[in-house]
Amino acid sequence: MAREIAEQPRALADTLSALLPLRPAVRKVANGRRHLRFVARGSSDNACVYARYLSEVHARMPAVLAAPSISTLYRAPLDLSDTVVVAVSQSGSTQEIVEALEWARIGGAATVAITNVEGSPLAGVADLSLITQAGPELAVPATKSYTTQVAALAVAVDALAPEPGTLDGAFAAVPEQAERMLTVGAVDDLAERLATTEEVLASGRGLAFGTTLEVALKLEETCLRPVRGLSYADLKHGPIAIVDHNLVTLLVAGPDGPTLPGLLELAATVRSKGSPVLGIGGDEAFRAACDLALAGPALPEELAPLVLAIPAQLTVERLARRLGLDPDAPRGLRKVTQTD
Amino acid sequence: MAREIAEQPRALADTLSALLPLRPAVRKVANGRRHLRFVARGSSDNACVYARYLSEVHARMPAVLAAPSISTLYRAPLDLSDTVVVAVSQSGSTQEIVEALEWARIGGAATVAITNVEGSPLAGVADLSLITQAGPELAVPATKSYTTQVAALAVAVDALAPEPGTLDGAFAAVPEQAERMLTVGAVDDLAERLATTEEVLASGRGLAFGTTLEVALKLEETCLRPVRGLSYADLKHGPIAIVDHNLVTLLVAGPDGPTLPGLLELAATVRSKGSPVLGIGGDEAFRAACDLALAGPALPEELAPLVLAIPAQLTVERLARRLGLDPDAPRGLRKVTQTD
Repeated sequence: MAREIAEQPRALADTLSALLPLRPAVRKVANGRRHLRFVARGSSDNACVYARYLSEVHARMPAVLAAPSISTLYRAPLDLSDTVVVAVSQSGSTQEIVEALEWARIGGAATVAITNVEGSPLAGVADLSLITQAGPELAVPATKSYTTQVAALAVAVDALAPEPGTLDGAFAAVPEQAERMLTVGAVDDLAERLATTEEVLASGRGLAFGTTLEVALKLEETCLRPVRGLSYADLKHGPIAIVDHNLVTLLVAGPDGPTLPGLLELAATVRSKGSPVLGIGGDEAFRAACDLALAGPALPEELAPLVLAIPAQLTVERLARRLGLDPDAPRGLRKVTQTD
Repeated sequence: MAREIAEQPRALADTLSALLPLRPAVRKVANGRRHLRFVARGSSDNACVYARYLSEVHARMPAVLAAPSISTLYRAPLDLSDTVVVAVSQSGSTQEIVEALEWARIGGAATVAITNVEGSPLAGVADLSLITQAGPELAVPATKSYTTQVAALAVAVDALAPEPGTLDGAFAAVPEQAERMLTVGAVDDLAERLATTEEVLASGRGLAFGTTLEVALKLEETCLRPVRGLSYADLKHGPIAIVDHNLVTLLVAGPDGPTLPGLLELAATVRSKGSPVLGIGGDEAFRAACDLALAGPALPEELAPLVLAIPAQLTVERLARRLGLDPDAPRGLRKVTQTD
């Protein structure tokens, strides 16, 4: 896991080099369709949470995070002739995702596959495949396959934005920012704080919310801690009642954008209830409001999620070892997962 | 809370009598639009999770569960001229939901409000209002306002189904089934099992998944227990690693439908890991696979969620008292919630 985390600057650079030139092909396949629909599971689903926000905020296209059961179990015959369906699977072999994309095609959708494996079943059913360049991933917890999926999704959505090219400078800065994330300080301190708590609540909002969910999933799968990922608003709307000193709150934030003031306020509220607040990303004011925080990348909010998970991955790897667990092969997980 | 739970047969009967005749008006407002978009928070958001499945399964219309921040914070200018936007708020006064519906209208959407308060700000901005007949709700945890919202959403979606009328017999049976849910056995036993556990994981899938999330939220808000609601597939795809004897699993299921076999199998898997399995709903085979289960309604899968939460509400109310808490006014919650 540690080696694969460290490969991400290279993996992201290769993925962006390979995929950014395919933006005209994405536009051609989309052929003016005005809706986006994302289909995935697990870490790939968290990548799609990001893509869904990016679609609406950046490409101005209404976007759905689909429930695979709609196609695989209910077999609902939807007319998707005005929709681009993007299915995401590292292996390209998760049967329900392949089935969901086949079903979308029958419904008239333009279909795009994002997978790490050229020639995989998922690539076989898509009109266009965006192959991530993560290379073979041996550790069970997704790290480089996750961030390269996020990059591929950013490229696919950017291809459909009304003003193309506005993010090109930021795309170019991604590999260097990924490199910077590998040497962010205080990872050991963060892992130590997480090692001594019973329960963790992770929160975030907007474009960084997908990263929040991914951090929560990774902590839980790899370190076998119960971790919940809740949006800022859903947290404020109810479960904030259970926040107290027994619970550590982990906030994940982009470097700027309209969601940041609310997260800053949330940090203060949660601290006033006695819960230690750990932060990843944000700006300096955000980090000052946390008990302990790791700096995020110098990228605009739209592309920060391409590397924002990296400090969290480092923390999870460190924490797993600290707890005497094997970060490469967590209990109860397989690499290719199937849901009926 | 107990009194309001008991009012649900009446509240559901009144809501369905008032709203079923408005189906032609819903169709008229929709005017052939092919997409649905739901906007809500908290319990109302859980009602919309159900509505989203119902839209695709029953009305064959692609449906989005919207993030309010897209409109209130990012102010993304989406073209929604092919979309019906349905906003749901008990009070009709949650500012961000009102703003989100105004924004949808500016984007060209047909707008429908579902609220319990006639003349509320939300009703004021909608093309059509479906007023639920829950009556004043005094307890902080939503019970009758939740189930009547689910009923109103079912009516709105059914109005747009390609073959109208197929659920009319089932709609007519709802009040009687709600009555039956009030006297379902073993509520005390279920509350007792939940009282002696540290952590609860709630799972479900498909049309009953919204009920699962609502049960999880209610348990957490009212009884101050950490409870997570996960879809069957998301659970199998990762967090199942943390299931063991320290955790009680609560499965919520409809009486039939294509998701039931998977939930039955999940009950067996989770039990084999040492976790006690409690069930609500399902069929006889499902209940036999649980350590303890409450029967659900005799309604088709499409409409079971109108009353399926009732046995869980009874359990939550009983559990709160058992824990020495006030179910009517849980710590840290207000009746009208605002998110900036």
